[in-house]
Formats: sequence, C-alpha cells, structure tokens
Amino acid sequence: MAKNSKVCWAGFDLGGTKMRVAIFDQKFHLLTSAEAKTKGFRGVRNGVRRMAELLDEAWGAAKAKTPQARLAGVGLACPGPVNIRTGVVRELPNVGWRNVPLARMLASAARVPVVAINDVDAGTYGEYRFGAGQDGQCVVGIFPGTGVGGGCVVRGELLVGAEWSALEIGHLPVQPRGPLCGCGQRGCLEAVASRMTIAQASAAAAYRGQAPHLLAEAGTDMQTIRSRAIARAIAAGDIAIERIVRDAAGWTGVGVAAMVNLLAPDIVVLGGGLVEALPKLYLDEVEATARKRVMRTYQDTFRLVVAKLGDNASITGAAAWAARMAAVPARRKK
Amino acid sequence: MAKNSKVCWAGFDLGGTKMRVAIFDQKFHLLTSAEAKTKGFRGVRNGVRRMAELLDEAWGAAKAKTPQARLAGVGLACPGPVNIRTGVVRELPNVGWRNVPLARMLASAARVPVVAINDVDAGTYGEYRFGAGQDGQCVVGIFPGTGVGGGCVVRGELLVGAEWSALEIGHLPVQPRGPLCGCGQRGCLEAVASRMTIAQASAAAAYRGQAPHLLAEAGTDMQTIRSRAIARAIAAGDIAIERIVRDAAGWTGVGVAAMVNLLAPDIVVLGGGLVEALPKLYLDEVEATARKRVMRTYQDTFRLVVAKLGDNASITGAAAWAARMAAVPARRKK
Repeated sequence: MAKNSKVCWAGFDLGGTKMRVAIFDQKFHLLTSAEAKTKGFRGVRNGVRRMAELLDEAWGAAKAKTPQARLAGVGLACPGPVNIRTGVVRELPNVGWRNVPLARMLASAARVPVVAINDVDAGTYGEYRFGAGQDGQCVVGIFPGTGVGGGCVVRGELLVGAEWSALEIGHLPVQPRGPLCGCGQRGCLEAVASRMTIAQASAAAAYRGQAPHLLAEAGTDMQTIRSRAIARAIAAGDIAIERIVRDAAGWTGVGVAAMVNLLAPDIVVLGGGLVEALPKLYLDEVEATARKRVMRTYQDTFRLVVAKLGDNASITGAAAWAARMAAVPARRKK
Repeated sequence: MAKNSKVCWAGFDLGGTKMRVAIFDQKFHLLTSAEAKTKGFRGVRNGVRRMAELLDEAWGAAKAKTPQARLAGVGLACPGPVNIRTGVVRELPNVGWRNVPLARMLASAARVPVVAINDVDAGTYGEYRFGAGQDGQCVVGIFPGTGVGGGCVVRGELLVGAEWSALEIGHLPVQPRGPLCGCGQRGCLEAVASRMTIAQASAAAAYRGQAPHLLAEAGTDMQTIRSRAIARAIAAGDIAIERIVRDAAGWTGVGVAAMVNLLAPDIVVLGGGLVEALPKLYLDEVEATARKRVMRTYQDTFRLVVAKLGDNASITGAAAWAARMAAVPARRKK
C-alpha cells in the first residue's frame, strides 16, 4: 500500500466533566491523545468549537508522527441516547445539552466525517473488538458508573433500535416500589446499583460512624467518595461499605440475569471504575446472583468477564465503529 | 418461471396440546393445513414419526392443488429455547421433551430440510412480514399466554443470541419479592402477567363469590377459565375480573417499557388469546403503563399495536423464516 493512502481514525469521548480525543492508525494502535474540560454550560456552539480545536490539536500531533496519513473519520461517543441515522443526541444530562445535531456540527467545524454513537455502545464495541469480548458471538457490556449503561454486539453488529441507540439497562424496572431514579421513575436498576447509589449510601454510613476508614479518607461528600476510596475503605475493614457494594453488585447480577434471559449472550463484560477498583469482590457477587437468577437453559451458556480497556474502551470503540460505518455506509434494510 | 420450479414452504407449530402444519406457496398464501394431538408423553421417537405423518398429509393435500410444486423446507416452531445453529431444543416443558435434536430428526423422518425456531420468535417474524409489524425497523412482539413470550426483528433479522434463541421476556425479574414463577424464580413477568396468572386469580375470585358471571360460565377450574370466558365475564359486569386483567395488563406494560428502554423499537406488537379477546381494555392498560414507564427519550418513538395473524402468526412466520434461511444459509460472522 502506498504511503500516502494511510488512514487514521479518531475516537472522541464527550464526558460530563472532560472530553478526550485519541488518534489511531489503521490497526487501531493509539498514536496521540488530548483532553480538555467539557464546560457544557458554555453552550453548544462554544462546545463544538472547542471539540474541533481539541481534535485539531490531537491530529496535529499525530501528523507529526505519520506525515502522509489522512484522517478518515471520527467516532463521537456521547453520554446519552443517540439517533443512529442523523447523529442527533437527544439528551446529554451530564453535559447539559438537548436535541443537538452533534455529528453534523462537529463534522462541519472539523471538516471530517463524524459518526455519533452512544458511549456505552462504543465501550462495548471496543471491548468486543480489542478487549475482553473478543470472539464473542453475542457480547453484552454492562458498565455501572454514575448510571448503569449497557451495550450489545451481535455477530459483529452493534444492537441498535429503530432509530435510537438502545440498551438503556440502567432503566430496567427491578423494584416496583424501589427508590426514586434520576429519570423520574422508581426502582430502576441504576437507582439500586450505580456507583452514585453506592456513594450516597456510603456517605450515610460514614456519617453514622459505621465506616471510619472511609470517613477519614473521603468524608461524607458523595463527590469525594470515588471508586478507589471505596475499595481502600473495604480493604481497611469498613464492613458497612462492603455490604453496600455487595448489595449493589447483587442488583447488577439481577440485571445481568435479565440481559442473559433477553439476549442469550456468550460473553458478558463488566466494566467501569468500581469494577476495576474491586474486580474480585464485584465479579463474585454479580456471578453468584446472575447464575442463580437466569433461566436454567442459559445457566452455562455465558462467561462473565471484567473489561480490559479501562478508560480507553469508548474512545477506541468509537474510532473502530467510525471505520466500520465508513466501510458499510448504508445500514441494511430488510 | 417454469411451472415445475414452483416451491412451497411448510410451517409446523408444535404445541403442548396440539400440533399444526400448514403449507404455503411461494408468496406465503396458505394452501392447506392439518392438525393432530401432540401426545408428547408417548416419547420423542413416536412424536417425530407422527409429525412426519402430519406433514405428509398436509403436503399430499397441497400437491393435489399444485401438482408440480416442490416442498423446499419446513420451519418448525417450538415452545421453548432453540439452539439456532443445531436445531436442538433444550426444554419443551409443555411437550415433556428435553435436549432433542428435533430439526435433524424431523428432517430425516420427512426427507426435507427443517429449520427450528422458537415459536414466539416465529410469531413475531410472521407479524413483521405479514401482519401488524410490517415495515417496522425494529419490531418487538409480546405474547402473553400460558407464559409471556417475546421476540424481536431488527431490520429484517430475528434477534437471536450467541447460540440459543433469546427474548425470554416472561422471565424478566419485575418484583424482587413477587410470586413464585414456574421457572423456580420469584417475581418474573410471567408470574404476574400471564393468562395463567389471570386464570388462577379469577378462579379464586369466582370461588369467593366476587365473579358470579365467570362462576356460572366457567366454574373455578383454571383450565376452563379461558380468554373468551374472561372477556364475557367482564362484559357481563364482573368487576373483580376486570381488575385482575387490568393489573396483569399493567405488568405487561412494565414489560413493554423495559423492552422499549432496551431495544428502542418503532413497533411493539401485542398478541395472544387474551389480547385478541379484549383488545381495547388490554391495549389501553398496557399503553397507559408503558408510556408512563419508558424513558423520556423513547416516549414517542414507538407504536403499540395488536397482532393481526392470530393463530397463524407462528406457523406463517416459521415457514417464511425457513425460506429466509434457505436464501441466506450461513449466518453472518464478524
């Protein structure tokens, strides 16, 4: 292949606090990356301009390494439901934007093709292509974080709905009279299993004096009670915190069982900061509940594994998805 | 096209009580059908022989109508999880068979290619191709009956798992402390929303004297309390029965909301005897609950419709799926 036909792909991860972009070569090796604060409150127009600048910065650095390459496209991972046809994002609660044709806006600001994708779908696709889900026929990804996100890749294809990204497993109704959820409903999976829920309950335990190690390290502010602080408190002997995490992990197991009954995957990938900080405790608890709760038919049909790509899952998956979509531009019709 | 190149397809519906076969022409117009008692208790070998005989009988009658035609394949709809690669059925609780390579056995007895498929998947595919789900990009089918079955067709393709048929939505966990389910778990959707659950609760209401019309017509035996008896009792003024049905339909609405959050369909088809007997009451209740319970993003992205093909959904869908699989023999890999 001639040198000047080399292509690169960018993955762009738009988060509530920060945004990150990475440039990959044709084989999806990372060349460069860059990040900046998101500052969604400054508005969409300003945000898109800053996104384009960040992309320019990363691409400039990549160009220095591989001067003859061409940036063929960007996969934009967004923290909310994405219209798979138009690239419009409906709601990005953590960024503060609604109904924005983000793919089109970034494409026009950066003068490069952009494919928008839900960030957890991107993460699941990343794990399927390069991480813990490789070679799966049907790979379900579950990422407990601020919420609980899900994605699914069936025979190499991301599972999406009629027009919008799907797999909002954080809003599976698991407790009819359960706690209020941020979405306005009650008893959704993420109201009982997210890191946010764990942080809230842990803050209360610290306040009640039941978690001295956590209190000493992180206080009672749920913003400072991050995954690693929770892991250290458990290691130091805060039994109350361990119970809280096990309870949440058990509910995640209920969610895994539901996804197995519904999608019959061969691989279920668990990821996110909390899972990475407490892989054994978390996986054991999820595994125990999930195996008990699935239908007998599916009991031995799936493996439960921990994600491998960490923070890079979404950004890598988004870049690979952009490449995939460029190769198969029109989605199949019946 | 030359007359002697005409092909026909058979749909075979293996039910707990009866089995039915129908022969369709190339355009899926029904030519002939035949049925017999299943008698699964007589064992698999006997059962397969009787299935082959029934197929012969229906095919003989079809041949009389279209002498030059050739039977190109059979779609076999089974009431349980099906291995999509091997055609093995794992458990058919209503037939009493387990781990049977049913597709291979019927193919060898009847000397014709056989594709096995889950019966609710077949019904959903039938509604997608010829019924209430036509032209949907992502069609979810939900059929409350003895259990609660589900299926999904995404852009013309049945959603299946890694190796087994999926969408066992009857076993979504919706009530952590809910009633026992036939699967051994607690609070599954079908434990609170199936026709069986409705029949049980209605029998108790009749016994308590709260449903005089139902008692007069169907007594207190849940086997005689069928969908039409329930519909007539409600029409005659049995308020207690109406409450029971509305409660079950509400839970079905919770299930619909879960499926919308997970699969983002544009069409949700509701079918089965009870829905057919009480289309308005049932649909209204499901619609009210589902619209309230879905994520805001998906609120206006789906239509809820009643199935159109009735008893023929599975048999027609199975035949059409056999034709589809013959055209695309190897399922795509990544």
